[in-house]
Amino acid sequence: MSSPAVRDRFHVHYQIRVRDQRSIEQHAADITIEQTVEVPVDVIPEEHFANGIPGRVESIAPLGEERFDVVISYRCDLADFSVPQLFNLLYGNISLKDNIRITGLDLPHSLLDSFNGPLYGIEGIRRLVGIGGRPLACCAIKPLGLQVEQLARIAGAYAAGGADLIKDDHGLGNQSFHPFAERVARCQEAITRGNAASGNNAVYFPMVSGGYDILEQQVRTAVREGVRGVLVGPMLVGLDAMRHLAREYDLAVMAHPALTGTFFHDRDHGMTPAVLLGSLFRLIGADVSIFPNAGGRFHFSDEECVALSAALRSPLGELNPAFPCPAGGLHLGRVPELFARYGPDTVILVGGDVLRRDDIESGTREFMDALRATAPEQRLAQQQPISACEWREPATTQTVPSDLLRFSDYTWSGRDKESYKHETDDFKGIMRQELTGRFGEETAFDLRYFEIEPGGHSSLEKHLHEHVVIGVRGEGVMVKGGQEFTVAPNDIAYVRPLEVHQLQNRGGKPFGFYCIVDHHRDRPRKP
Amino acid sequence: MSSPAVRDRFHVHYQIRVRDQRSIEQHAADITIEQTVEVPVDVIPEEHFANGIPGRVESIAPLGEERFDVVISYRCDLADFSVPQLFNLLYGNISLKDNIRITGLDLPHSLLDSFNGPLYGIEGIRRLVGIGGRPLACCAIKPLGLQVEQLARIAGAYAAGGADLIKDDHGLGNQSFHPFAERVARCQEAITRGNAASGNNAVYFPMVSGGYDILEQQVRTAVREGVRGVLVGPMLVGLDAMRHLAREYDLAVMAHPALTGTFFHDRDHGMTPAVLLGSLFRLIGADVSIFPNAGGRFHFSDEECVALSAALRSPLGELNPAFPCPAGGLHLGRVPELFARYGPDTVILVGGDVLRRDDIESGTREFMDALRATAPEQRLAQQQPISACEWREPATTQTVPSDLLRFSDYTWSGRDKESYKHETDDFKGIMRQELTGRFGEETAFDLRYFEIEPGGHSSLEKHLHEHVVIGVRGEGVMVKGGQEFTVAPNDIAYVRPLEVHQLQNRGGKPFGFYCIVDHHRDRPRKP
Repeated sequence: MSSPAVRDRFHVHYQIRVRDQRSIEQHAADITIEQTVEVPVDVIPEEHFANGIPGRVESIAPLGEERFDVVISYRCDLADFSVPQLFNLLYGNISLKDNIRITGLDLPHSLLDSFNGPLYGIEGIRRLVGIGGRPLACCAIKPLGLQVEQLARIAGAYAAGGADLIKDDHGLGNQSFHPFAERVARCQEAITRGNAASGNNAVYFPMVSGGYDILEQQVRTAVREGVRGVLVGPMLVGLDAMRHLAREYDLAVMAHPALTGTFFHDRDHGMTPAVLLGSLFRLIGADVSIFPNAGGRFHFSDEECVALSAALRSPLGELNPAFPCPAGGLHLGRVPELFARYGPDTVILVGGDVLRRDDIESGTREFMDALRATAPEQRLAQQQPISACEWREPATTQTVPSDLLRFSDYTWSGRDKESYKHETDDFKGIMRQELTGRFGEETAFDLRYFEIEPGGHSSLEKHLHEHVVIGVRGEGVMVKGGQEFTVAPNDIAYVRPLEVHQLQNRGGKPFGFYCIVDHHRDRPRKP
Repeated sequence: MSSPAVRDRFHVHYQIRVRDQRSIEQHAADITIEQTVEVPVDVIPEEHFANGIPGRVESIAPLGEERFDVVISYRCDLADFSVPQLFNLLYGNISLKDNIRITGLDLPHSLLDSFNGPLYGIEGIRRLVGIGGRPLACCAIKPLGLQVEQLARIAGAYAAGGADLIKDDHGLGNQSFHPFAERVARCQEAITRGNAASGNNAVYFPMVSGGYDILEQQVRTAVREGVRGVLVGPMLVGLDAMRHLAREYDLAVMAHPALTGTFFHDRDHGMTPAVLLGSLFRLIGADVSIFPNAGGRFHFSDEECVALSAALRSPLGELNPAFPCPAGGLHLGRVPELFARYGPDTVILVGGDVLRRDDIESGTREFMDALRATAPEQRLAQQQPISACEWREPATTQTVPSDLLRFSDYTWSGRDKESYKHETDDFKGIMRQELTGRFGEETAFDLRYFEIEPGGHSSLEKHLHEHVVIGVRGEGVMVKGGQEFTVAPNDIAYVRPLEVHQLQNRGGKPFGFYCIVDHHRDRPRKP
């Protein structure tokens, strides 16, 4: 039997359209199997049903025109508390079946808590830019194919004009005409200068879209340049990348919907924009979720856009709310209408319409004026940008292995002498230094150095794990399994599983030795 | 001006359905802008057109019923030679527009070469399992929710029955009832035992679907257990993960289509299965691409399945061909029909129909008999599985650990000096003594002593396992990760996973050192 928490279930609304002779009940039951055990019903072990392993149909309600709202629940722990398995469980295999669409999610705290959601959220982003009250402005550095200095000039003009967020166009990668490192450094520089000129605090979101082995390098490069946010396409670089990058590097993240469109094309298939770009993108960490506004060159409806915004901002466990960011060929004249539709907690992204002005800085100012006309601006105490150096300094525990521990007088650089054991024990005159295995290494073993004063000894004990002891200085005595022998420098002694053993120093000089043990090991016991 | 190579263009076939008053020419032109510069036409710099930065409409041909085949070319370098940007350029934003479908790709060598494709390919997989001539059998470890020992028993029965490939069900993650590390270790063990019993060489493909920061740990865990392949859902863990994992860990990779289905649902939108699960999955490294066979519980047509197989196997630059793997509720009786449709270079995945037999091992044998009846089987010289244990030097006869290895003149009692490595290699003047770990101990580590003559050096190599090196005599130089430092007696040097490293003796006296490594470890590779 599992604990109640393990047995928590979450609920998914599937809209199913029945276009064959099978009943809605059969269609619903298919999903419960397909998404979990994925074997013929006769192969499912009996106890799986008692344990709630297959999905469970909780309700079926007709929606008219062959369509039904079917609620299916799954055990939370099947989602593995990991983003890829959550998506797999929600829609992995059935994405390959027709006429099934996810229209809603009901996720309990146990699941929500394991994903954390937006690191900054609406409040955090506002504190980063120091602006409350009104919608925020986002401008896009583009078009792809310009020289780095041209892109930096555009970025700087946005900042000087007072933009709040400045993002790369999502096609800007590491192309030879604007290589990532140089481009990001120059754009951040230009934005910092522009901010200084305007007294603003625009935050830059470069696009990170490198391959699997490159992505994190790009992020580190950006962070070293003082960048505080990144633009991520979850479908491009991996569904879980955004959450990871935000937390690992303390970054604000803006989600781009590239390649998500196949989920929305057919209203009988995929997921609603509110589920994918709203609830799920928020769950996987988006502070800002970009989407194509209704009435532009893409095909989201008014209703879909409003529902998406609600999914980003309405209460969802302890998760921070996130900014909706309507985009897609918007022009400045539409700001009042956008405000009316989305309210103040919105990021409005305008690209080409500012760029097309002769003077980008004054175009940006026009954009800002339009935003200030919607709702009174509040200046907030700005959260100072923390540069890469600052946040990396205060490491409390060492998690990066040392390349070299330099030996000097029976101590090693960067390692502390410790007492042998913390608890009171049957030992005397002995100290230890942990050398490797507990400092971020992934080895299956730990290396320690021990030193026993004349007359001292270790505990007489036994354990399942073995010891390999190498003499380093002086001479000691290994007592074990009813025998004893001396251990001199470079002699190698071995202690078997559960062999009662002790090391003693019967001489007049310190006895020092390395002891190698398995990293995963059992606790010593009295003989 | 750019070099001709930079100006290389690749071609994409878009099927566009016109359902509004605008002309096909306008629709086509929209794509050329949307997927590249993404600004209003009046904002595009004049020279961008001369430089070929926007997409270019190469041809438009009517297909009937409002549909057109439109060929658009893009500069190869816009794709950034990275998988995420390639997908972005092909379909990122326009996925959000209606009625556009990618039906074909024409990729020049410059682009193909930068992605490499399948590491093993059809020939490599066949050498791994040692079987030519006939289709290969793949069995699935399932259902989710069983205990680890039950899953291992199923895995072992498949291997004993002679299966070629054994994959995890794609829902198997790190759930508490079958945690990843334990499950993979037990299943690999059971498969190794089953192989020994049957004289076969089944290769195990565990599903890796951990979050962004967990995925690679899972792969390392699997590699340490001797696993040679992994099952990856590119849409779940990131489009570029498969290519990266294959190359970084020398793994065969099987691609799972989870979450790809939205691309195929509407024949007027997305991509054809041949483009996504065929050409693109091959490009991003799939050795085997799983897809739902026509006529099963999913909705691919015969024609789509055959085209997909052709895309995996037909010539594509220097890329290895990959195995199509039809799946989805197949039963053994359909093997002849599948062979007729797909031919011998096919992996046939049968799940429930083998599992439903009382005796899984004999069910697997039935499967194998059906496959052998399709085409004559050839036994190929097997590429030895380089599992962690097997690649290590031949086992010594000593099975009782020594209590004490007495040191004298840099040799140890009861231990032989050996040459450094058996194979011819790039090393010089170096000898080794195995000290502990291979003489009946059960430690998770091995302790060895190496000595390098003046002027000698070890191989320049990298591997997943780490080194902890302790200087014993003389002084040597550790070269690693672009730095170098001396190692004197009792200095402790650490080599990170996959760090390229070498030890050199530039002095006039012997340089001796201990080297501690994990007992289960991967084979060294050239840098």
